[in-house]
Amino acid sequence: MKKILLKSLLILLLLVNTAFAAEPLPSWNDTASKQAIITFVEQVTQDGSPNFVPIAERIATFDNDGTLWSEQPMYFQDYFIFDRIRALAPQHPEWKLKPAFKAVLDNDVKAFAALSWPAVQELIMASQSGCTTEEFAQAVKDWTATARHPQTGRLYTEMVFQPMLELLDYLRANGFKTYMVTGASQEFVRPWVEQVYGFPPEQVIGSNSKTKFVMREDGPVILQLPEFVLMVDNVGKPVAINQYIGRRPIASFGNSDGDLQMLQWTTSGSGLRLGLLVHHTDAVREWAYDRTSDIGQLDKALDAAKAKGWIVVDMKNDWNIIHPFEKKQ
Amino acid sequence: MKKILLKSLLILLLLVNTAFAAEPLPSWNDTASKQAIITFVEQVTQDGSPNFVPIAERIATFDNDGTLWSEQPMYFQDYFIFDRIRALAPQHPEWKLKPAFKAVLDNDVKAFAALSWPAVQELIMASQSGCTTEEFAQAVKDWTATARHPQTGRLYTEMVFQPMLELLDYLRANGFKTYMVTGASQEFVRPWVEQVYGFPPEQVIGSNSKTKFVMREDGPVILQLPEFVLMVDNVGKPVAINQYIGRRPIASFGNSDGDLQMLQWTTSGSGLRLGLLVHHTDAVREWAYDRTSDIGQLDKALDAAKAKGWIVVDMKNDWNIIHPFEKKQ
Repeated sequence: MKKILLKSLLILLLLVNTAFAAEPLPSWNDTASKQAIITFVEQVTQDGSPNFVPIAERIATFDNDGTLWSEQPMYFQDYFIFDRIRALAPQHPEWKLKPAFKAVLDNDVKAFAALSWPAVQELIMASQSGCTTEEFAQAVKDWTATARHPQTGRLYTEMVFQPMLELLDYLRANGFKTYMVTGASQEFVRPWVEQVYGFPPEQVIGSNSKTKFVMREDGPVILQLPEFVLMVDNVGKPVAINQYIGRRPIASFGNSDGDLQMLQWTTSGSGLRLGLLVHHTDAVREWAYDRTSDIGQLDKALDAAKAKGWIVVDMKNDWNIIHPFEKKQ
Repeated sequence: MKKILLKSLLILLLLVNTAFAAEPLPSWNDTASKQAIITFVEQVTQDGSPNFVPIAERIATFDNDGTLWSEQPMYFQDYFIFDRIRALAPQHPEWKLKPAFKAVLDNDVKAFAALSWPAVQELIMASQSGCTTEEFAQAVKDWTATARHPQTGRLYTEMVFQPMLELLDYLRANGFKTYMVTGASQEFVRPWVEQVYGFPPEQVIGSNSKTKFVMREDGPVILQLPEFVLMVDNVGKPVAINQYIGRRPIASFGNSDGDLQMLQWTTSGSGLRLGLLVHHTDAVREWAYDRTSDIGQLDKALDAAKAKGWIVVDMKNDWNIIHPFEKKQ
């Protein structure tokens, strides 16, 4: 035990060192957005400040799609669903007869985009049910290790936002407990986000499906069933935050109307609060879209940001690097 | 920021100091139970040991009723329900016509004990719905600050188990992340367990009801609705652990058949695992009951403990103090 504690001390000393050696948020240009983030963090962490927040209450919640990684031209989980449905199809000859499944099996992205939400739900459930939690986590890990984005040719996990990785580090170094709160399947994100972003599984909240504890001959397993129990989007975000965390965050980060209620919930608490929206404005390095986009529509939340004083990050002008692979070698 | 980090270092140094200054588990007699706990902790925390477990994976889950505090002659949440229903009754004249509510309003504990589970559920829901999360948390805090056990005359929060408080401290000092996993309402336990046991709300998992995010004129609220969304008992315990934590615990602590599946799930993982059951054997200082009790029945899990090598704590012989108030002044 002594060793572990001494090691923890050494790690902390290292953190202190790192925190003061490096300028925070190097991939952020010196614009108002960066300054507003730093001012907020300094105020809530400064002992004796009227805005001081104890460490236990420094909860920050992050959306994923469009906030921590790209989401165009289709949510990345949808690419997984395409690959997974195609891989499982030989065991399900009946799928060919269903239009939703046929769209996926024909790799018809347009037909997929036109599907109703219940039809998409059926595909999501087919992609992640009928297996144990451990089998599914392995399937996701195998996919993220090899699957590549059709336009950039990059692994999906390379298409994360370098400035947001730095923001996560900066908040954690200042005592924040950071959570992912995503509309995507919790089962789909948990297996890889610890390595990529540093969120341990217990700090990852997503839409999730019913499960069943089953005692098998060689021990118990948890089976994933084809039914949603929790949808973590729109009003579902504050609801899930209350269910899992039980504290209102003091800072929330999103990019679309699906994050509106999370930011409303966060910023309407007492004391200093931070709301931030990532606005996709860079058609060259990433994508540019907002009010009329089918993916990551940012309309009502953009108006709310102006009314409420939330930070709106202009990706083109606020970020000198978007994806880590743009860094000079 | 520098101040906070330096303060963290000081706190850690203090922890190191405390950890080595004091003998762990002083309220535990020097029996096989205590030795087995200490051996387990030493093995999983010793760097280089074949049984070493990294800090991030040191998850321990604790049942509450009968494991961390007493549960006789009736679960303590039921006393809250009695008081709450009686307080709300003037606004609900229709309740007098329903047998379940009539039992409570007449303070008829026997009639209450004979109710069906759906009838009890209706009472639980009536006690905790129709208000915001913040209003309900305040009602619970007010109750725990004043309500007293009918037999001991103690505050319910005084009827916790001193040896288990020490066990929580000991595990935390050794890098364990401790969770409560209770069949009681999450809404009922979260408001007070941080102060009493040191579980922050995000490490408290309980049965919980549907909620709704509502935008009011003076800001958003979360309303508690009269419908369960999650039951955290029996098979519901590993299911909830998977949903909230996403990692299999390496140690689990319970006292009844309601904890059986949690202990099965925990102890069937690979590597060294700990399962522990608190056996209520002390009719003088607490209560003695097991296989035939209506509250906290311990039957199948007791058999499983023998077969699986789980620790069975004999409260009478393993604990020199049960409740903190027995300590000499």
